Amino acid sequence: MTESDLIQLLTADLPQDDTVRVAAGDDCAVLQLGKETLLFKTDAVVEGVHFTVDTPAQSIGRKALARALSDIAAMGGTPTHALITLGTPAATDPDRLQSIYRGINNCAVEHGVNIVGGETTTLPCLTLSIALLVTALQPVLRTGSQIGDALFVTGELGGSISGHHLEFTPRLREGRWLADHCKPHAMIDLSDGLASDLRHLLGENPGAEILTSALPISRAAHELARKNPSSKTPLLAALTDGEDYELLFTVSSKNAVPVLDAWKKAFPAVSLKCIGKITDQPGIVLRDEKGTQPFHLHGYDHLQQS
Amino acid sequence: MTESDLIQLLTADLPQDDTVRVAAGDDCAVLQLGKETLLFKTDAVVEGVHFTVDTPAQSIGRKALARALSDIAAMGGTPTHALITLGTPAATDPDRLQSIYRGINNCAVEHGVNIVGGETTTLPCLTLSIALLVTALQPVLRTGSQIGDALFVTGELGGSISGHHLEFTPRLREGRWLADHCKPHAMIDLSDGLASDLRHLLGENPGAEILTSALPISRAAHELARKNPSSKTPLLAALTDGEDYELLFTVSSKNAVPVLDAWKKAFPAVSLKCIGKITDQPGIVLRDEKGTQPFHLHGYDHLQQS
Repeated sequence: MTESDLIQLLTADLPQDDTVRVAAGDDCAVLQLGKETLLFKTDAVVEGVHFTVDTPAQSIGRKALARALSDIAAMGGTPTHALITLGTPAATDPDRLQSIYRGINNCAVEHGVNIVGGETTTLPCLTLSIALLVTALQPVLRTGSQIGDALFVTGELGGSISGHHLEFTPRLREGRWLADHCKPHAMIDLSDGLASDLRHLLGENPGAEILTSALPISRAAHELARKNPSSKTPLLAALTDGEDYELLFTVSSKNAVPVLDAWKKAFPAVSLKCIGKITDQPGIVLRDEKGTQPFHLHGYDHLQQS
Repeated sequence: MTESDLIQLLTADLPQDDTVRVAAGDDCAVLQLGKETLLFKTDAVVEGVHFTVDTPAQSIGRKALARALSDIAAMGGTPTHALITLGTPAATDPDRLQSIYRGINNCAVEHGVNIVGGETTTLPCLTLSIALLVTALQPVLRTGSQIGDALFVTGELGGSISGHHLEFTPRLREGRWLADHCKPHAMIDLSDGLASDLRHLLGENPGAEILTSALPISRAAHELARKNPSSKTPLLAALTDGEDYELLFTVSSKNAVPVLDAWKKAFPAVSLKCIGKITDQPGIVLRDEKGTQPFHLHGYDHLQQS
């Protein structure tokens, strides 16, 4: 059973009324409370999955919050309040816990998030879960893409394991700016790998075409391939490595050039690439100078790989 | 280091702005978002601490949500939306997970809570964390008690381990009714045991006096003592057993009789007892026909006992 099969099984019949605009299935829930549109989100990191025993404590705290913020960025939201659930082995040094909190707090200050409490509990392995409350004027969903839409990605892809997965800055400013200025039809943050997350972005559309020469491949992906020739090629890494925490979104094709132009003025230091389009052909297809070929590999599935 | 020492250490310097009315330290955070007062809360249950490997799956799900709702009851709030974080060993039977969700969903329907998503992750032991979003007109805090206040408790105390800890109904209706009609100065739900939770309710006041003959001792506490004469007396069980999930609150002494009268009309099937008062004498004191004696035992401390 894959993670998405399990989620489908568990969320088939959840009790919900008309305050729930979007629930399970998007980056976070979208709620209507009176006049306020709120996003509501939890995200957990676990030792051995999202970080190792050797990861510096501050980096663990930082990553736990930054990952959740990345999901919010993909909705164009403004995170306001967070609660921390910290599960630790009984013998964990309080200094280490303080360092984890320092990592959380520094990241929270950086992004204007209030930390309003939480809970500590005893667990066999270090686990951090973040609950986030978020305001959003016009939340951008995963599911609004249309056939013919241009497909964009921020930053560079692949090789996150070399360090980016601990050091990335969630694209909150960029996500909000896109939501406010560019009418994105659909948006998602890349956590499981481009090939996998792109499937979520298709919505009801059959497929997408990626122009491989347009893919922004990170230096880290190139270096990993150079050091270990039997590992993924840089291109495969960009397509399938997890934890890029970049934004993948679609806009109407007629807006593609204006979006690129406006982006360069707003975020001159951050790459934005048009990497392909949503199509009416089934599946994900790679296009290069030789023609097209279907791409079947997925990214990371939390249940399949554990 | 006790749980409360650790919490104090970790929450000493959290980033917060003026949207945060109450943060760490109460039953949940109280936030002001525009005109809306919102409560925000997370609560986790862990196998081996809050339930055993033999606990029926539906009861685990039910308890996970009901515990969190009990905290909301103590604020006089109306829970509206919940997210579920489910950590399971890799080999957990999907049927078992479905039963856990069934337990959550049934409890959610009973109390009008929308389940709006969540997350599954792999953990060495079964863990469920609930994040709750709540509306509240006049949230009742833990900290508003005044010297001379009458001290009330709902239901019956002690012996929860016999079954009540899985079957209790969170006192949401009662908590909201109290907040709306009785001007409680301070309120808390009993999760760690009366003696322990009463200390949280003292706020800045030095102490409280409990009239032992007024304590509503559960039949379960009597039966446990009868079956095992070397265990706690029923009185000690009522004072220190955890997981009663009843409401403990204070009102101005002049309101004590009107509150009791109104309660009997509103909730004829639920016990409400005036069990003592807030005093200017330090510590918790038990009064019986022979006089008074200080009471030093605490209830359950999650870190001390684990």
